[in-house]
Amino acid sequence: MSSLSTNPYKGTRDYYPEQKRVQNYIFKVWKEMSERFGYEEYGAPMLEPLEVYAAKSGTELVGEQTYRFTDRGGREVAIRPEMTPTISRMVAGRRQELAYPARLFSIANYMRYERPQRGREREFWQLNVDVFGADGAAAEAEIIELGVEILKAFGAKDDMYTIKLNNREIINAMMHDFLMLDTVQAELMIKLFDRKNKISNEDFRDQAIEIFGAEAAPKGLKKIAEILVAKGIDDLPKEIANSEAVKEMKELVALLESSGVSNTTFDITLMRGFDYYTGTVFEFFDTHPENRRALFGGGRYDGLVGLFGAEPLSAVGMAPGLSMTELFLQSHDLLPELTSTTEVYVVVLGEAEKAATTLAQKLRSEGVNTELDNTGRKLDKQIKTAVKKGVPYMLFIGEDDIKAEVYNLKDTKTSEEEKLSFERIVSRIKDRRRRQSDVDDLV
Amino acid sequence: MSSLSTNPYKGTRDYYPEQKRVQNYIFKVWKEMSERFGYEEYGAPMLEPLEVYAAKSGTELVGEQTYRFTDRGGREVAIRPEMTPTISRMVAGRRQELAYPARLFSIANYMRYERPQRGREREFWQLNVDVFGADGAAAEAEIIELGVEILKAFGAKDDMYTIKLNNREIINAMMHDFLMLDTVQAELMIKLFDRKNKISNEDFRDQAIEIFGAEAAPKGLKKIAEILVAKGIDDLPKEIANSEAVKEMKELVALLESSGVSNTTFDITLMRGFDYYTGTVFEFFDTHPENRRALFGGGRYDGLVGLFGAEPLSAVGMAPGLSMTELFLQSHDLLPELTSTTEVYVVVLGEAEKAATTLAQKLRSEGVNTELDNTGRKLDKQIKTAVKKGVPYMLFIGEDDIKAEVYNLKDTKTSEEEKLSFERIVSRIKDRRRRQSDVDDLV
Repeated sequence: MSSLSTNPYKGTRDYYPEQKRVQNYIFKVWKEMSERFGYEEYGAPMLEPLEVYAAKSGTELVGEQTYRFTDRGGREVAIRPEMTPTISRMVAGRRQELAYPARLFSIANYMRYERPQRGREREFWQLNVDVFGADGAAAEAEIIELGVEILKAFGAKDDMYTIKLNNREIINAMMHDFLMLDTVQAELMIKLFDRKNKISNEDFRDQAIEIFGAEAAPKGLKKIAEILVAKGIDDLPKEIANSEAVKEMKELVALLESSGVSNTTFDITLMRGFDYYTGTVFEFFDTHPENRRALFGGGRYDGLVGLFGAEPLSAVGMAPGLSMTELFLQSHDLLPELTSTTEVYVVVLGEAEKAATTLAQKLRSEGVNTELDNTGRKLDKQIKTAVKKGVPYMLFIGEDDIKAEVYNLKDTKTSEEEKLSFERIVSRIKDRRRRQSDVDDLV
Repeated sequence: MSSLSTNPYKGTRDYYPEQKRVQNYIFKVWKEMSERFGYEEYGAPMLEPLEVYAAKSGTELVGEQTYRFTDRGGREVAIRPEMTPTISRMVAGRRQELAYPARLFSIANYMRYERPQRGREREFWQLNVDVFGADGAAAEAEIIELGVEILKAFGAKDDMYTIKLNNREIINAMMHDFLMLDTVQAELMIKLFDRKNKISNEDFRDQAIEIFGAEAAPKGLKKIAEILVAKGIDDLPKEIANSEAVKEMKELVALLESSGVSNTTFDITLMRGFDYYTGTVFEFFDTHPENRRALFGGGRYDGLVGLFGAEPLSAVGMAPGLSMTELFLQSHDLLPELTSTTEVYVVVLGEAEKAATTLAQKLRSEGVNTELDNTGRKLDKQIKTAVKKGVPYMLFIGEDDIKAEVYNLKDTKTSEEEKLSFERIVSRIKDRRRRQSDVDDLV
């Protein structure tokens, strides 16, 4: 029989302990900061009935990118490609029981059938933060502020990212009242704007002409040019400038400024792919030259809960992703040194196995993360393993040590060695842990 | 349009914050205890090439229970129904680079197409703990000891569970040397023993006769009876008693006893479903009358890494599941009271919104989990939300309070109210947190 491949499925990653530490670090910051803002964690199934996405997730996602199949009972299902429809379903399911505003977060994995590339995998992890039942700009400001605080907790400075803001109603005013497009045209134009940074100016122009039609195109292109040169929200053509949404946008910007968030830009070309957005949309952009793309985004989607037969409910959310966060931390050199969770490796000399097992048990009962070498191998092989694993301390246990009740504790990095009592060993290791968590707190 | 259903996909669960707290509590104990024994966390994809399971997971699992489908690129894939083949693949992929014994754990979700029932869902969560490259009974003893320590960390007493032990080589000796079955018959008999507790004695007898064949059946049944009455490992018929595996089993029992684990029973009828086991197998059984079934199990599977073209490597592992653990904790009344992670709910009076936002920011920067009511609603509605969410403190902020720099802090449970300075509020909330984590440590 030919042997099986050791490669993971295309577009997915194996997280060995070194990679898992990075993932755990990012998850920990996400969780801590979400809880810091009063959000509570929830969990949801990895499979959903396909219809959950068919309604509002956008045709590209459902038609081309979902992992969908028919289960053994004939049900059409999909591996979740995102969380928003699921959490909307869950909130609708407890529409009467939940307390509002409901602040909810999850950290979960998703799958989309896409071409894998830098920062984009078929299986990917996201934090999803959503607030339900909060109208108005205050809720949007809070979610964006949480995004900022997450980046700060990672050590990011204000100049490492910018926040682009737009509003679906401003987009609608632009499409219908200013560019004078009908519904079908508007949808195509939104998709075109969404791709704008990924295609050439010529392609953008050609496709825009096609959408306008030959007759309307010259005037249409002139109007688009007018929009693209508009520098701020006060430069907008009057057909757009008078909309209620522009007032909301100004309120949002003011709220953010009063909370100390000033690196925002209004960007009327910011579309966000999902069909369910109804108001404010935003994206955090990395400013690092190697990494100029959206870090994460979100927005208001007031219509989704109502699709599940529940009384409609407003909602704002965002979804930072693991891969983009990791690239951001790498580019800006913000990843801390992450070491093994194991604190001491017990090296067993001669016939001391039984005594070493007892000592390892004692260390564990004191809360010390203790790995015991119970292989019976030679000393040098045991030491090699401890070093390769990067365990910070080695503890040598021989028969003489047990009689004397003092043991050799060796710092793996500095090679310093000390003969210490059990109590001193425990406090030495706990001191190190305290120093480590102080470093964490500084982050 | 008819509205979408709010039900999760059949056999899966929505984890609202109350349920997620229980899940998080169990995950936390699993993680802490696995790390306590020097195991390091890894992560793996939710999808695997189907062939990974086809080799060794057992025909029922692959043929009837996997969620398998063809991806958009024509690849045959499966949602992982278990972790053992995946971690074996990962270890094989870094066969040369890893340090041995490699101690690894993960907490992940799986899917199997089964009839949902008490303690069994189609999507389920497991801790997987595995040690690679450790031969002999010491590795098996360590894994079982970790299982015991996990249950102890949940507050379990020795009489709440028993540990059943067996060994695949003892099973083989029984099948071939004692019952005189050929390979095909042995496989059928193993499956029959595996179902023994789920079927009637008559059914067991009838199916056993069919496996033996009419001629061999009378003698065969007598031999089975002989095995079933054997009370301990020393009562086994000599065809089995002389095998090397029996010696190993005695060594394992002795090691466990010297580590203080004495609630073990040798049970020659314990089979474990997976085809990949090669040596010791074990199962933890709940002794609660309402809950008499396997809590979790594991064993030695030395052949799996080699299937991936790597140099063969010994392995021992186990996989406690979330649902059975939860049932165990419920039955034995071991679940602690779990409250919201949010510590204070800021109630905003009158026009104090801006000042309340600033104060919430200050609380958060002190590390306090702070939810701010930014809805502009009436006082009673804000209070109702805080109470419904079970947030332990409410903090009332009005314009007068801001001037006086003292604020009303109310204990949601006792309704006690105090006027306190910002610093006192922070220390009050942190004291509570310290008390909570002391309770955790006692568990």
